[in-house]
Amino acid sequence: MDRRLTLTSSYMEEFQPPQKVLLGPGPSTVHPRVLQAMARPVIGHLDPAFFQVMDDVCEMLREVFQTKNTMTVPISSTGTGAMETACVNIIEPGDSVLICRNGYFGIRLGDIAERCGATVHLMDTAWGQAVDPQMLREELNKHPGLKAVGLVHAETSTGVLSSVKELVDVIHEHGALAIVDAVTSLGGHEMRMDDWGIDVCYSATQKCLGAPPGLAPISLSAAAMEVVSKRPTKVQSFYFNLKDLEAYWNQTRAYHHTSPINMTYALRESLRMMMEEGIDQRIQRHARVAGGLRAGVEALGLNLLAEEGHRLNPLTTVAIPEGIEDAKVRRTLLNEHDIEIGGGLGEFAGKAWRIGLMGESARERNVFALLSALETILSKEGYEVAFGASLSAAQRAIATFDEG
Amino acid sequence: MDRRLTLTSSYMEEFQPPQKVLLGPGPSTVHPRVLQAMARPVIGHLDPAFFQVMDDVCEMLREVFQTKNTMTVPISSTGTGAMETACVNIIEPGDSVLICRNGYFGIRLGDIAERCGATVHLMDTAWGQAVDPQMLREELNKHPGLKAVGLVHAETSTGVLSSVKELVDVIHEHGALAIVDAVTSLGGHEMRMDDWGIDVCYSATQKCLGAPPGLAPISLSAAAMEVVSKRPTKVQSFYFNLKDLEAYWNQTRAYHHTSPINMTYALRESLRMMMEEGIDQRIQRHARVAGGLRAGVEALGLNLLAEEGHRLNPLTTVAIPEGIEDAKVRRTLLNEHDIEIGGGLGEFAGKAWRIGLMGESARERNVFALLSALETILSKEGYEVAFGASLSAAQRAIATFDEG
Repeated sequence: MDRRLTLTSSYMEEFQPPQKVLLGPGPSTVHPRVLQAMARPVIGHLDPAFFQVMDDVCEMLREVFQTKNTMTVPISSTGTGAMETACVNIIEPGDSVLICRNGYFGIRLGDIAERCGATVHLMDTAWGQAVDPQMLREELNKHPGLKAVGLVHAETSTGVLSSVKELVDVIHEHGALAIVDAVTSLGGHEMRMDDWGIDVCYSATQKCLGAPPGLAPISLSAAAMEVVSKRPTKVQSFYFNLKDLEAYWNQTRAYHHTSPINMTYALRESLRMMMEEGIDQRIQRHARVAGGLRAGVEALGLNLLAEEGHRLNPLTTVAIPEGIEDAKVRRTLLNEHDIEIGGGLGEFAGKAWRIGLMGESARERNVFALLSALETILSKEGYEVAFGASLSAAQRAIATFDEG
Repeated sequence: MDRRLTLTSSYMEEFQPPQKVLLGPGPSTVHPRVLQAMARPVIGHLDPAFFQVMDDVCEMLREVFQTKNTMTVPISSTGTGAMETACVNIIEPGDSVLICRNGYFGIRLGDIAERCGATVHLMDTAWGQAVDPQMLREELNKHPGLKAVGLVHAETSTGVLSSVKELVDVIHEHGALAIVDAVTSLGGHEMRMDDWGIDVCYSATQKCLGAPPGLAPISLSAAAMEVVSKRPTKVQSFYFNLKDLEAYWNQTRAYHHTSPINMTYALRESLRMMMEEGIDQRIQRHARVAGGLRAGVEALGLNLLAEEGHRLNPLTTVAIPEGIEDAKVRRTLLNEHDIEIGGGLGEFAGKAWRIGLMGESARERNVFALLSALETILSKEGYEVAFGASLSAAQRAIATFDEG
């Protein structure tokens, strides 16, 4: 009955991950500084030394969200858990809410809102298009008394950026709370939570923030927290209950659950790196590098799937050309060029590639590595390629990028 | 508007955690091998190389739970999230369930079950006592048609181990599913999920498994998964929805949420270390070291709070002697001796110390370090101490431990 390691199992070996350039929809590459911070010794989640780590993380997150909200904390889950946190705390059974859907994550937001027992109105926009403020206004007029409206700032499935400021204004004209998914935008696009009047905003660590996946920052305005405090029914989730999390993070430090200590170390270090770089500078970097990618992709003759003027910088969607096999190209990229990009989700499955340039992955060198590999692979697949054209176009766009 | 690091913030400095011996109720000390595994480069959550990591983790978790259950995976949360996963997937609105409460975590289990919209019957047992099979049988007779019964194998708040095998037999006589919380017992006490007929069992990484906090293994029998599959209502949580997690972990690998990649590396390495040591050997180690602690504590004249015959090995509860200030002793232990122990929770707040000897923390040297520090601190506080007596008693117990 000696249950020790058996010689035949694959877990016999220490795991040495292959070195990949992560240009998918997340996780993005993590800087060694962050990985090393994560590997520091564990201390207790109620140790005063850890309370300082928590305070540092919250202070920096407020900078990144551009908010003064006390309730700005990382949720101990991935981004989907933060989406659920936003919904289960704000939405009660019997409430009426509206969810804007212009891609996979809008659909997910609607699904989660429905699980809260609310009447969920859905406003659908074609994939590849941004949520339209005028259409939203008309839709809101049909549904008086909505408690909240949920929308996705940066739709990771389509590469589309919606104009949150305008949309929030419309939502507030209606008197509803604005819940904004900033999973792929935070740290990669301008996000002014207080100036734009966002009530609830959440993100995830593994995209533009540059940490590994596993935590999900969220911020709620005082008005939103008052709604949470005054709800007559219990929040359906104990784990995601913000009143308890508020006590642990900001008030009495009362135990709620055991914090993911080392992930919190990692987030602290990745936020420090963002503070050192400057948030605006980081957003500029994402814009510059994405501009290079878009120019290169178009020089290859490929089509971008997001409407012009609303294209995300951290994530670019590219139409897969006729006659080219999606999975084969991505497999070759991963196995022969050590580059990961993403496939399409939902309506874009098999039709789009999703190329992420987020956090540490948003570097010029990665644009050239990817374009070069794509030229090689596509030409072998019979697609006509003018070698080097995409690289030149990318280089021109980067060199002439206007820092504004 | 250059939002870069300001010189006054505490986050200016790299965080170097103080070196602490973690003898609280978790997290426990993590071996450098595990910390280093966690710091390896991030790869994609849909990379085939990561699928192998997932399979390795599941294979080893099945060994640790002693089960053949296909659905044996780590949940992307801490232990409380796994408790919620068990409840929200099994319990539907309108169901009737019974929760055995003999401490803080039983109370939490009841709270979470209630949030599922079920009729929750509560069976309370005095703090410090194990759940009694005969009392359970009588209680079950009062409530025909229960869907499930939830109980805590190792109550972390009281240091009490309940006899799961007998209790599950009683539950099955009644025809209900048995949900067992093994957060503090898994890897530290015998756990035979299949032999004992447990339907749902969950744990957490930061206790006897020896990884940092942040993941929570769960296992469901085929019968339990059938109940999940056939429920007419949607699971209230999207994040904790086991059908989607089953698809990602065991079937189509379809994206559900972005896995906490590096935490999964850490869990794989900590499980590998358990496989190398041998599960039974690790359980023996927990028993031997805990026996030393108990002997030492009693030689100090302190009282153990858990009833004899049901004392947990990974966690020992000690009554704080009259006239001794709880917080001061723990603060001195932490600041001057670099040892963390836990305070009491719930009914035991201010009355008990909770001393954890879990995973890497379950080492003889830690018993001697703690007893020696306690002798020094308590004597300074005016408590009569025969110096060295607790150390001798611990040493005798350890040296004469019967490996069985």
